Amino acid sequence: MLKGSQTWEFPTKPIIIGAATVVGPDENAGPLSGDFDFSYDNLEIDEKTWELAERKLLEHAAALALVHGGIAKEDLQCFIGGDLMNQIISATFAARRISAPYLGVFGACSTSMESLALAALLVDSGNAINVLAGTASHNCTVEKQFRYPTEYGSQKPPTAQYTVTGSGCAVVSSKGTGPRITHATIGRIQDLGIKDPFNMGAAMAPAAADTIISHFRDTGRGPKDYDLIVTGDLASVGHAIVKELLDKDGVSMEQTEFGDCGLMIYSREKQPFVIAGGSGCGCSAVVTYGHILKKIKRGELNRVLIIATGALLSPLSYQQGESIPCIAHAVALESEEIRL
Amino acid sequence: MLKGSQTWEFPTKPIIIGAATVVGPDENAGPLSGDFDFSYDNLEIDEKTWELAERKLLEHAAALALVHGGIAKEDLQCFIGGDLMNQIISATFAARRISAPYLGVFGACSTSMESLALAALLVDSGNAINVLAGTASHNCTVEKQFRYPTEYGSQKPPTAQYTVTGSGCAVVSSKGTGPRITHATIGRIQDLGIKDPFNMGAAMAPAAADTIISHFRDTGRGPKDYDLIVTGDLASVGHAIVKELLDKDGVSMEQTEFGDCGLMIYSREKQPFVIAGGSGCGCSAVVTYGHILKKIKRGELNRVLIIATGALLSPLSYQQGESIPCIAHAVALESEEIRL
Repeated sequence: MLKGSQTWEFPTKPIIIGAATVVGPDENAGPLSGDFDFSYDNLEIDEKTWELAERKLLEHAAALALVHGGIAKEDLQCFIGGDLMNQIISATFAARRISAPYLGVFGACSTSMESLALAALLVDSGNAINVLAGTASHNCTVEKQFRYPTEYGSQKPPTAQYTVTGSGCAVVSSKGTGPRITHATIGRIQDLGIKDPFNMGAAMAPAAADTIISHFRDTGRGPKDYDLIVTGDLASVGHAIVKELLDKDGVSMEQTEFGDCGLMIYSREKQPFVIAGGSGCGCSAVVTYGHILKKIKRGELNRVLIIATGALLSPLSYQQGESIPCIAHAVALESEEIRL
Repeated sequence: MLKGSQTWEFPTKPIIIGAATVVGPDENAGPLSGDFDFSYDNLEIDEKTWELAERKLLEHAAALALVHGGIAKEDLQCFIGGDLMNQIISATFAARRISAPYLGVFGACSTSMESLALAALLVDSGNAINVLAGTASHNCTVEKQFRYPTEYGSQKPPTAQYTVTGSGCAVVSSKGTGPRITHATIGRIQDLGIKDPFNMGAAMAPAAADTIISHFRDTGRGPKDYDLIVTGDLASVGHAIVKELLDKDGVSMEQTEFGDCGLMIYSREKQPFVIAGGSGCGCSAVVTYGHILKKIKRGELNRVLIIATGALLSPLSYQQGESIPCIAHAVALESEEIRL
């Protein structure tokens, strides 16, 4: 590892032995519908508050991930999780039920890959056999938290995104079968001065570009080494910007498939209320652990790089006139038998 | 490592090559005054808002820790930090200035040892040479956040604690000289149903007891293997409870010195406004990185176990009638040349 490297390499290639995704009705009505393990037919997720709904999504996905991994919660040495709520209460209350040793993390919508990267580091170090990584978001908790309660019915600008209601969890292990985790690239804060919480994609795009370029620099890899590279939740506005930024830096993504979880999860034509696309820490989690992992398992993808993006504002920092610091963490996955 | 172990062992014993603490006027008026590297003489920390004050404490301590470690911020492969604010904005905005790859963590007041444990894991794995771990709290940000704004002047019950205004940071490295990090024990959520945010010590005590017992079970060590064992911020109420809980489990702390950072930082006689004692994620950070590390360096302590405790409530979870899930993470330090 070179001085200045921000990429972790995992020589043991920790294995995702099981994963699960649980979503709400809008996500299940989108193009990836068949890839999710469970969907609730009501946005309330059969609960009395939005916060209980979000927590239930995470608890449900965690329980299913353990079943899919063929282990019991007593077999976990750690649960690493976080979410968008103040003091990450969804992850914490889920951790109370999971009852494994617990590390709370916060990277806003990048939490999905921050938790997966740390899970892989912990397993690779030999200090754990099985680690659960997971996150969740709910449309109505997050809109209330960062913008306006949905019940208020405010109009949104065309740059706004739609927070995903869903949770994705993965069990990372030192033994078993499944897709492998080979690298993680930890992002630096990028802040170009955007202050508008209705324009997250544009705020986060420079962070995604910086992490992608750093990943290629640190690993010696390039776009053609991956058959899919996806950003987390840049949606239509941010994804166009990240392409432009990469182009300016001489990184052409034409040699690979370059997508965005926020553009994959909904049909913007049939679901126009999503405006620019999906967002929220559940977005990259359910697309990765639902859609992408299944394609890797079926042999349709060999190597994938997921760059989850996070806008690290708080309601208070916004009210106090601060700009939005952003970050992106990348994790490289490959199929069990690499067929490049 | 055994199945069920929640303790990480670091064969390379990562080194704390530099650390720094920056505090406010009340902390500098306490018994540990001489151990802090810098103190501001005003609670505003020369800033316009409490949030800017908290951020400045962290940025100041981070900069000093790098100076004490003899490295530049460009030499850092990672900054791992968190705080008590919604969306951990103090750590995030400090990370923007530090400009190293950044991992946000949240463990409430246990953030000090959560970040130090992860820093040691990352250095021990060989994926980083230098990692900065740090946290900060400010009396007025935290009281406003979790209880009432201090300006409101509400009376407090005798179980209440006083949030520390201060920041502590440490540079953990694979080479250099300084105290070594040998183990970390990651806690499980403990929640015995306490709902009162003015009685954090009682809420957190079971988490501290559980982590201490787990640490001894996993490492085969006992109280006599440490010449100091300190909890983070249980203060007078919680520290009495943890002693009782350990006694009931047959763990006698009479063979060691058993303290609490929340009881060490202030003089409850001369500073009666602290009521039960100190709290906040700055509490264990400034006592550990200020007072304890200096005693280890002077050869007055050989082996120390620090158990930072965290009450993982949010204002919203409290308002919705939830109890307070608590956690404790422990880190074992030893002097460079062990003299046991």
